[in-house]
Amino acid sequence: MKRVKLALCQMQVGPEVAGNLATARRMLAEAAKARADIVVLPEMFPCPYRQDSFAEYAESSEGTIVGLLRQAACDGGYYLIGGSFPERAADGSIFNASYVLDPTGRVLAVHRKLHLFDVELSEGVSFQESAALQRGMAPALVDLAGVKTGIGICYDLRFPEYARLLALAGAELLVYPGAFNPVTGPAHWELLLRARAVDNQVFTVGVSPAPHRDLDYQAYGHSMAVDPWGRVLVTADQEEALLLTDLDPDVLEKVRRELPVLKHRRTDLYRVQGIAKWAGWGD
Amino acid sequence: MKRVKLALCQMQVGPEVAGNLATARRMLAEAAKARADIVVLPEMFPCPYRQDSFAEYAESSEGTIVGLLRQAACDGGYYLIGGSFPERAADGSIFNASYVLDPTGRVLAVHRKLHLFDVELSEGVSFQESAALQRGMAPALVDLAGVKTGIGICYDLRFPEYARLLALAGAELLVYPGAFNPVTGPAHWELLLRARAVDNQVFTVGVSPAPHRDLDYQAYGHSMAVDPWGRVLVTADQEEALLLTDLDPDVLEKVRRELPVLKHRRTDLYRVQGIAKWAGWGD
Repeated sequence: MKRVKLALCQMQVGPEVAGNLATARRMLAEAAKARADIVVLPEMFPCPYRQDSFAEYAESSEGTIVGLLRQAACDGGYYLIGGSFPERAADGSIFNASYVLDPTGRVLAVHRKLHLFDVELSEGVSFQESAALQRGMAPALVDLAGVKTGIGICYDLRFPEYARLLALAGAELLVYPGAFNPVTGPAHWELLLRARAVDNQVFTVGVSPAPHRDLDYQAYGHSMAVDPWGRVLVTADQEEALLLTDLDPDVLEKVRRELPVLKHRRTDLYRVQGIAKWAGWGD
Repeated sequence: MKRVKLALCQMQVGPEVAGNLATARRMLAEAAKARADIVVLPEMFPCPYRQDSFAEYAESSEGTIVGLLRQAACDGGYYLIGGSFPERAADGSIFNASYVLDPTGRVLAVHRKLHLFDVELSEGVSFQESAALQRGMAPALVDLAGVKTGIGICYDLRFPEYARLLALAGAELLVYPGAFNPVTGPAHWELLLRARAVDNQVFTVGVSPAPHRDLDYQAYGHSMAVDPWGRVLVTADQEEALLLTDLDPDVLEKVRRELPVLKHRRTDLYRVQGIAKWAGWGD
């Protein structure tokens, strides 16, 4: 991998799309000034994270949101992982989708959230994404500025198989736009980002919205980047923040050389495999 | 699962076998007084953790060490996960082996360390277990006092596939006798125990020796038990300590009902499978 500068845009997402898009434009311009190579937006950056409103805000790849992402990538001259937005497909299906663009504004990959968040926590957090969204079917692994980068969205982070499949396919960086909440955030957000990093000896990045008091679903914030030894390189609290960090390829190489867990896997006894449409992934 | 009381024996392991066995007997008697249902000793509890001395201390299943374990389980009326010791097999091979006994002293299972610790950290920790030991070939999952319990040893903790296979086979508790060190311990011990617990929604337990200043390899200590939400139930620092904790089946049931990650796995896209001698394990 190459040495790169990452920018994590922990933008505040409020009730109004127009305001959110303005915030995104402002932070994407700041990332350009900071000369970032790769820029990441949070999950559902244009609209409130609310299952009964995804259809209302859904857009196709020809809409305003992807237009904004293309423009920002071109203007900034960086690779852009466009958080996610409710994407309306040609057949009317809606996905929680992350568009990945190169510095010419070309779409390199689209990650559609694989694991939908259907939970009912007694502490008050309840969500049924599958009532409003379809599940993605494809893994996303792309080369961004010389860094092999896997993409997941939020709840995808809870599934170690997906991270492992990306690492076995060569990922050096895993990026998760995500909106954990006041229950799951303090309990699991940092833990899972660090565990995926250590288990797979990759860099991991999680980018959350900053919470907004007028929304029902309160995002946890605490965007962060973690190195392959599990060290937190940079993080935020709950305020809006542009986080910058360099990813050092020497750290990844050192960890993998000194503690070669990926080589010590007992592939004579077990394997992790992609099947069906994922045939060819994994052991 | 049933509600059980666990005892974690973070005993100090020094250079002399006789002294270590005396320490083990004393702590195993304390665990009986505390009316524990399941008792756990640390990795390599009878002898120094040093690759060039495993052969010197190795014993068969008919030796003093397993005799001590049988006696303690009978006297205490508990299930015993006997940490580990260098086990000499009939053909002369030596394994890092954990014997699991029932309250009548019968051996229920033997877990032989699957993943050998061959590392060379620039911070000064270097180890080549494979120069002295053979690798185990079998997973270990046993019912202990109504709790389906999977066993791993130390470095096995770094491999999420093994924990996942145990969980898919019904494990409710994963127990890892282990001796992390001053480099890997602060960086990863708690992180990995908590991550295995959260990913698989099981209880996890790690039991380490307390360090001894006369040994080259300094164990990290910090034995702990973690619940399926990733909360540390009980832990120690580096002193010798008998840790007691109850495992509450209602917690496991609540976590799995409210946040059903094991049901949300995309088994249409990926699977984790045992192969060869592990055929039938996993998806």
